[in-house]
Amino acid sequence: MSTGSTGGEKTGNSSLGHKEFRRSGSHFADRVTADGRDGWPVEGGRYRLVVSRACPWASRAVISRRLLGLEHALSMAVTDPVQDDRSWRFTLDPDGRDPVLGIRYLAEAYDARESDYPGGVSVPAIVDIPSGRLVTNDYQRLTLDLATEWTALHREGAPDLYPEALRDEIDEVMADVYEDVNNGVYRAGFAPRQKEYEEACAGVFRRLELLSERLAGQRYLVGDTITEADIRLFTTLVRFDAVYHGHFKCNLRKLTEDPVLWAYARDLFQTPGFGDTVDFDHIKRHYYQVHTGINPTGVVPLGPDLSGWLAPHGREDLGGRPFGDGTPPGPVRPAEAVPPAGRP
Amino acid sequence: MSTGSTGGEKTGNSSLGHKEFRRSGSHFADRVTADGRDGWPVEGGRYRLVVSRACPWASRAVISRRLLGLEHALSMAVTDPVQDDRSWRFTLDPDGRDPVLGIRYLAEAYDARESDYPGGVSVPAIVDIPSGRLVTNDYQRLTLDLATEWTALHREGAPDLYPEALRDEIDEVMADVYEDVNNGVYRAGFAPRQKEYEEACAGVFRRLELLSERLAGQRYLVGDTITEADIRLFTTLVRFDAVYHGHFKCNLRKLTEDPVLWAYARDLFQTPGFGDTVDFDHIKRHYYQVHTGINPTGVVPLGPDLSGWLAPHGREDLGGRPFGDGTPPGPVRPAEAVPPAGRP
Repeated sequence: MSTGSTGGEKTGNSSLGHKEFRRSGSHFADRVTADGRDGWPVEGGRYRLVVSRACPWASRAVISRRLLGLEHALSMAVTDPVQDDRSWRFTLDPDGRDPVLGIRYLAEAYDARESDYPGGVSVPAIVDIPSGRLVTNDYQRLTLDLATEWTALHREGAPDLYPEALRDEIDEVMADVYEDVNNGVYRAGFAPRQKEYEEACAGVFRRLELLSERLAGQRYLVGDTITEADIRLFTTLVRFDAVYHGHFKCNLRKLTEDPVLWAYARDLFQTPGFGDTVDFDHIKRHYYQVHTGINPTGVVPLGPDLSGWLAPHGREDLGGRPFGDGTPPGPVRPAEAVPPAGRP
Repeated sequence: MSTGSTGGEKTGNSSLGHKEFRRSGSHFADRVTADGRDGWPVEGGRYRLVVSRACPWASRAVISRRLLGLEHALSMAVTDPVQDDRSWRFTLDPDGRDPVLGIRYLAEAYDARESDYPGGVSVPAIVDIPSGRLVTNDYQRLTLDLATEWTALHREGAPDLYPEALRDEIDEVMADVYEDVNNGVYRAGFAPRQKEYEEACAGVFRRLELLSERLAGQRYLVGDTITEADIRLFTTLVRFDAVYHGHFKCNLRKLTEDPVLWAYARDLFQTPGFGDTVDFDHIKRHYYQVHTGINPTGVVPLGPDLSGWLAPHGREDLGGRPFGDGTPPGPVRPAEAVPPAGRP
């Protein structure tokens, strides 16, 4: 789901009024599946994944795509981190057009799917290249399908990010992480009143404490390998000190002040497929420049110091097999490398 | 100088426009002196010091008054940390009136001094009790006069906070601390544009680094005792993580992330006359609720965790004689104790 342009997050763009923050659901929930039952069969080269590197929900898909080695099968368009009033745009590309879809705004793919669609335009989105039509913006389902439906196109050595035997536990962990952490930081940041803010912020840190306890003795959230649950926690943790701590007022502690979670996040960051997808410049500019309702000046802070992300984490001592029976992904494609300005 | 209501800080209350933050000078610069040359002789019981515990400029005077034992000679009025459109008010007192001056707003003492004074109402302020007239709001001079002109009324064992032999060095240190730190955080926080913000924020941390180097090997800023220079650095450091880090975007590091400055600040906090004057509740509510130009929701963050302020600092190992040949002040008067909500 986008940050800034869906119904639920429009509140960040202008005056907040007195409505509690609510995240809107994904409107387009078609699935791209192996059997093509929704009319969208998995097919190499047919679809384009549209993301913002600023957005935690889209970043899940960027990481999954890397870990699973789907770069050759599913191309990726990266939007400008700062939307305008027509939402996500391809201003980073020559002539401001996505070179594959030929459009300037992601909204054009939404319009091609459903004319005069009144909802928000959000990332991640999968677009059908031949027709230019949006297929899905269902961020909760999208990565699970990359892991379980796109298997025929996975690289050799791709990990199983959603192993059957562990799905119940993974789902349970992800549900708590979603409610209290992934979405909790937004409820805190966009709370129009003290009471809603305090409940959300306290909930964020209560859950982080429980996660810290869980991760003190085990390298990953579920089982002994990286799963979808780790991806979903990571995308919030990597943004924590850069934007959630100050901009969203989740400031009981910095991530760097929780030794367990900080080492866990660094471990993942330094794992191929995680940190190499993260653009701190996009993250900071998006949040601070788009949410003028809570940051009227649009000034982007200089901090925090990011160099610690590359420091040793010592989590290897806990064992764990990051990729299970598989192997790490290869290097990032040069065209998809994060520019130096976005790296620690 | 007040936070929020002088000309220079009005920008924090509403839309920022595009003007760089400039602190306005103090308009009323009469001095209360031993010889009474401005018509205001030092005299026990004659004057009232009006402060906000939220305001760093006023807090200098609160600390000096404690260290010098002037409580019996110069009574103190504490305003509500949140001003309304008539500025600082005595809403913490019964019937919303200062029990000594009998007024509801500090502005009344300004009006008694000069009718239709168009400038801002600021703290700290010294008011002549018999006439109800403002004497001075010159925050830069006020504490130096408490140290050097009010000596006849100092307690036994009061320290020399502005020793003659060290004044040049103290003045030099204080000038840099004022420009880059005391006022630098405001210039960062109220910067209407990225460029002004970055210059101010970088300046804050450049100066803090130099101060950290200076204080690595010596317990206090100048000489081996507490001076006015320490008081002026302390009042900014004690607010750093609570408000300047997030609200003013001075977020390259938290104070707690600089081991030297953090230990230095804790050392002072735990010295009688410093931490016992600090009300974190007043500090946080003032900044976050008054500056709606940069925090439109007025939501006050739950963090940071303040318990570390009471942790051992180890600075005794550097030697130093906190009060020189003098002694620490006695306990806080019960009526002036900071309520539990404001303490770590």
